[in-house]
Amino acid sequence: MNGELMRAEIAEQPAMLGRILHEGAPLIRSIAERIRRRRPRFVLFAARGTSDHAAVYAKYLVETRLCLPAGLFSPSTVTLYDAHPVLDDVLVVAVSQSGASPDLGEVVQRARKGGAITLAVTNAPDSPLARAAEYHLDVLAGPERAVAATKTYTAQLLTLFLLVEALRERDGEEARLLPERADTALGMHDAIQHVATRYRFAEQLVVTARGYNYCTALEAALKLMETTYVVAHAFSSADLLHGPMAMIDRGFPVIAIAPGGLAEQALDPVIDRLCDLGAETLIVGEPGAAARGTLGLPLADIGPEVVSPILTILPLQLLAWYLARERRIDPDQPRGLRKITETR
Amino acid sequence: MNGELMRAEIAEQPAMLGRILHEGAPLIRSIAERIRRRRPRFVLFAARGTSDHAAVYAKYLVETRLCLPAGLFSPSTVTLYDAHPVLDDVLVVAVSQSGASPDLGEVVQRARKGGAITLAVTNAPDSPLARAAEYHLDVLAGPERAVAATKTYTAQLLTLFLLVEALRERDGEEARLLPERADTALGMHDAIQHVATRYRFAEQLVVTARGYNYCTALEAALKLMETTYVVAHAFSSADLLHGPMAMIDRGFPVIAIAPGGLAEQALDPVIDRLCDLGAETLIVGEPGAAARGTLGLPLADIGPEVVSPILTILPLQLLAWYLARERRIDPDQPRGLRKITETR
Repeated sequence: MNGELMRAEIAEQPAMLGRILHEGAPLIRSIAERIRRRRPRFVLFAARGTSDHAAVYAKYLVETRLCLPAGLFSPSTVTLYDAHPVLDDVLVVAVSQSGASPDLGEVVQRARKGGAITLAVTNAPDSPLARAAEYHLDVLAGPERAVAATKTYTAQLLTLFLLVEALRERDGEEARLLPERADTALGMHDAIQHVATRYRFAEQLVVTARGYNYCTALEAALKLMETTYVVAHAFSSADLLHGPMAMIDRGFPVIAIAPGGLAEQALDPVIDRLCDLGAETLIVGEPGAAARGTLGLPLADIGPEVVSPILTILPLQLLAWYLARERRIDPDQPRGLRKITETR
Repeated sequence: MNGELMRAEIAEQPAMLGRILHEGAPLIRSIAERIRRRRPRFVLFAARGTSDHAAVYAKYLVETRLCLPAGLFSPSTVTLYDAHPVLDDVLVVAVSQSGASPDLGEVVQRARKGGAITLAVTNAPDSPLARAAEYHLDVLAGPERAVAATKTYTAQLLTLFLLVEALRERDGEEARLLPERADTALGMHDAIQHVATRYRFAEQLVVTARGYNYCTALEAALKLMETTYVVAHAFSSADLLHGPMAMIDRGFPVIAIAPGGLAEQALDPVIDRLCDLGAETLIVGEPGAAARGTLGLPLADIGPEVVSPILTILPLQLLAWYLARERRIDPDQPRGLRKITETR
């Protein structure tokens, strides 16, 4: 049947999260300890596509939990413009599922020349990127065969969370119950199938979130574009107010991520505004918030906001899968895409 | 007549660019000199909306021309999560047209406490943001009354270009001919009106660019969303290949920015791919590249790539204006927006 690869890989995530927590954590702590001794003062992430969304999450963690300045490296500064950045005291983290994209390899080589501490986070320990960086972390997702990345994304999120926590000498306690919680989050097939049916003819939609879950908006939009060809646009809910809100009118479909915690409070006035405009909202997250949407996908046991992006994406991966099926698209073989994207 | 404010402000840009080059440059150089002596090692930009796109441009300049690591500050790390970042040796540049958004004010105050060198770049010298930062640069755009920012954006681009050049003790020679070139770029009314007529019923489009002009894709998409309510999605052309390309099919409108130079070479294979897919391309930029599109807006005298974002946005501002008129929307009063967006 079409889409079996993606569906199976989505379903593997609870067990995979457990594997990272138990088998992966000791190596993460040992590499973090070696990096910590070198006292990085700035952190730059380099990534593309889905991995870039994991980098957006990790950037927030570095800013809020390590209290260090952080940025996203623009690979084209090296690959197009041949910049030679001065990177003493900078930790450069390259995140890539395949470790095979040539631009990230060039970025890591240039970063090492510039004095950076380099770490590659991949699902491919034998990849060129893993070899190019001084340190390497395997995200332990196992082989991913579907073109649309699912389990490698949540594996990156959890690995980067545990890395940041280890860099500040914590054990990442907030992540402990993720395997059980992920299992619950993946159990909403009927509700998700209903949303997919309703979205059958949607041509465009907006996904919005704030703070730690901004990555969820970006990744959900990408997954929907890749597998269902809907034009899905992610906005931080603050940016949505700076202009794009003008294009939202009655019936416009907007998916909002409401994870509980501080970001959800900040999202509240945006949801009020969307309701006033008559937008059709699908709210994914904390049950009280989910009940406020035209449609809701409540996550009964969502846990701490800081690790909630590892959960909130799960029903949206399933939504992409079900919506692809409604549209008679094989989500394992999106048109025009290959598993490894080679960009320069 | 509707839209007179926006149209007049678009037309003011050539003279305004001349004013920045002649009256603004000495102050830019003097502030740059004071910042340079303090030897910043990392640069963070904080901004929202249109100003954030100017920050994206400046981040590339810092990376390629100053060869320093740079990042975009996520205001919510301070305003939602109350982070206290350690920012010794960090230059924090807050970019805002109005200088009135409370979140940027908080970011600058927190950054000062954290040890950063702080600079506000605004069009409002008496604003809270201008007062909160240690240094201030006025972009000299004059009062902007249309809700959709146009001249303040190009004023920010040029001011930030001259700032980065002054920080490396250069005079920004590449910008010298911008006033004349901007005048030429704004002279294509007939061709732009033709595109606007053709886009009358377009519901969605993609804008793509690479490198220095990535900001142009972001800003053109925002301007089109704000003033014409089309769903416009900006992608770096590398990111477009990482997934979203799947949603492009025959007839899908894609605007590509081809400024000449290195980024245009990198864009070439993407344009080939779009042609193969049968997308309807509008290519804005260097005349040879523009001729390859289904539609083209050639910029006869585009000059050096590094300052081309100050020119490539101009025909796209006009396109937003003409398309709003075709759709009977008053571009001076987009629904649901105000001039100053207060986000936290």
